[in-house]
Amino acid sequence: MANQAQLPGWKDKILFTPGPLTTSRLVKQAMLRDLGSRDFEFIQVIKDVRQKLLEVGQVDADEYTTIPMQGSGTFSLEAVVASTVPPAGKLLVVINGAYGKRIAKIASMLKVNTATLDFPENSPVDPKKVESVLKTDPKITSVAVTHCETTTGIINPIEQVGAVVKAAGAKYIVDAMSSFGAVPTNLARCHIDYLVSSANKCIEGVPGFGFVIAKISSLLETEGYARSLSLDLLDQYKGLEKNGQFRFTPPTHSLVAFRQALAELEAEGGVAGRARRYRKNYQILIKGMRNMGFEEYLAPEHQGYIITSFRFPRDPNFNFDTFYEKLNEKSFVIYPGKVSDADCFRIGNIGRIFESDVRSLLAAIRDTIAELGLKIK
Amino acid sequence: MANQAQLPGWKDKILFTPGPLTTSRLVKQAMLRDLGSRDFEFIQVIKDVRQKLLEVGQVDADEYTTIPMQGSGTFSLEAVVASTVPPAGKLLVVINGAYGKRIAKIASMLKVNTATLDFPENSPVDPKKVESVLKTDPKITSVAVTHCETTTGIINPIEQVGAVVKAAGAKYIVDAMSSFGAVPTNLARCHIDYLVSSANKCIEGVPGFGFVIAKISSLLETEGYARSLSLDLLDQYKGLEKNGQFRFTPPTHSLVAFRQALAELEAEGGVAGRARRYRKNYQILIKGMRNMGFEEYLAPEHQGYIITSFRFPRDPNFNFDTFYEKLNEKSFVIYPGKVSDADCFRIGNIGRIFESDVRSLLAAIRDTIAELGLKIK
Repeated sequence: MANQAQLPGWKDKILFTPGPLTTSRLVKQAMLRDLGSRDFEFIQVIKDVRQKLLEVGQVDADEYTTIPMQGSGTFSLEAVVASTVPPAGKLLVVINGAYGKRIAKIASMLKVNTATLDFPENSPVDPKKVESVLKTDPKITSVAVTHCETTTGIINPIEQVGAVVKAAGAKYIVDAMSSFGAVPTNLARCHIDYLVSSANKCIEGVPGFGFVIAKISSLLETEGYARSLSLDLLDQYKGLEKNGQFRFTPPTHSLVAFRQALAELEAEGGVAGRARRYRKNYQILIKGMRNMGFEEYLAPEHQGYIITSFRFPRDPNFNFDTFYEKLNEKSFVIYPGKVSDADCFRIGNIGRIFESDVRSLLAAIRDTIAELGLKIK
Repeated sequence: MANQAQLPGWKDKILFTPGPLTTSRLVKQAMLRDLGSRDFEFIQVIKDVRQKLLEVGQVDADEYTTIPMQGSGTFSLEAVVASTVPPAGKLLVVINGAYGKRIAKIASMLKVNTATLDFPENSPVDPKKVESVLKTDPKITSVAVTHCETTTGIINPIEQVGAVVKAAGAKYIVDAMSSFGAVPTNLARCHIDYLVSSANKCIEGVPGFGFVIAKISSLLETEGYARSLSLDLLDQYKGLEKNGQFRFTPPTHSLVAFRQALAELEAEGGVAGRARRYRKNYQILIKGMRNMGFEEYLAPEHQGYIITSFRFPRDPNFNFDTFYEKLNEKSFVIYPGKVSDADCFRIGNIGRIFESDVRSLLAAIRDTIAELGLKIK
């Protein structure tokens, strides 16, 4: 495997994961440059990226601002928790999967006063229950929820949750890591104060940074809240506004690639166009998998078109590692499961993959089942 | 400028900065791939990089370990401060420039009990004074110092400071951001517990992550110290040791580029070979600049060969922004100054630049001076 991979011209495997994803050739080729991080040209890249992301979020620069942050998406999420929950504030984390739990873990490491509202992993969060927690606990100043819970692929009703958060006068944090760019979202309509996503998700860039789209009026209230220098969201914003630059070295190559990825998103018809391709990928996948006898973890009405968790087949000879390796040898990379109460694996529909790639994956799964002599139905 | 830059095939400017740097063609081409962050092949990349960095630091895997961390070098530095100073511990930051001050700022944001020992920006730190502070303040558990202060380019005596830190029984943190890979360093001989550097410095990779080379026995004592999830150094280490993977999405493309950069470092004769090229770049630069009448900020005996601060010429018509732009138009990117008590600009000698590039820069500076009619001598 290692030897093959080192051959020049070796063809990359197709990634059916939640990211890093298969990206376009031009996105990668955009990285064949070295730009000075404080030079005019790179400052223009940052400016373009910040503006385009507002357009993806359907908001204007007079109300919202984009703050790119070095590191993975989790770093951006931690930046929001560390920088926007007041010192004497309280965060409510609404949880129905591993990524919601991660927000609570971030808050706990930061010693932020935190409450959680837990739902089963196979149900969307319920805005009514969020509302009643907010009514009984007036200390809550901030509420966080995931949009697409990557654990299962479930889509949470962020607009309805936003309405009750707004009514309670709390700030609203949405982890839109694996939905932003592919699930149409109007930040203002959802009453979002801080939306977090990452370069290597549905906008189809390469990893290296995440970003926060923040409501400016909320952000400006957070002076003195930050619990970190690197992850200080307000300070990062002030630096960008002052001279257009990151405070500390940015991943210049990832940013340049991302500008190209945003141009390709636009060329595909924006979020609506991308949603169309991903939904098609999802429909073909689900149909093919069901035909083979696989079952999804979620009920279809809760399932988004980003990523799907499939239950392990009942055949006692099924071994995920073997199944993974056999698909890998055929150049397809799938993803392990993360559901806590069921054995699952995951298949993503996002990245630069098309109907034909999904059909090739299905054929490879069919062949693998035959090779391993597995009974699925 | 923006239009030119968008022309395909536009040639990049040469970067005479402290990073991101001009990198080799093959380093950038290594990024023309999409690897799964949890796939076998990428796990091997991480393993190779971690091992090679120990070799660069002249230490063995039974005593030291490499922990790559997403984000810029500052994020890795914050990870060390946030994860290794005990909750009731006290950090002494030894400062002779802006990057030392930044460590103190990190500690202050994290509410870590901190003392500083300040030296003028034009003098190396004095190990004897560090020793006397450690004697008078037994509460100090950790000491941090920069190796090459990028503010001026001064090289601090990290081995002598290490001896007094070791004698006092404190932990020793070295910010080797802009020296590691180009200034020979044996971590064990310097008694370093945590050395911090970054992908886009003297190893000539692209930005996206930093790394910490940690003494394993010291690291394992830090259970429960971390003040952050994203920047939890021990947890990052445990994740890497458990399954060879990052806990959260790594910058896959930067890591693959970095493996190539490490191979090129080896091909150049390792740290000694690279030091030879950088020193040559420095000597040519300094000679040419002096001939034109420029003066260095530091006395020559303190000046390292990484980056040099030059004083603004006395000519009242000298304007740094104009000077910068004129050089930029000629495709050379220099760097603004950061010295607090003198007007300076900086020129770096690091990255994939050679004698001929330095001579071209000198010619461009000479032309620019003539164009602007400046008097330097």
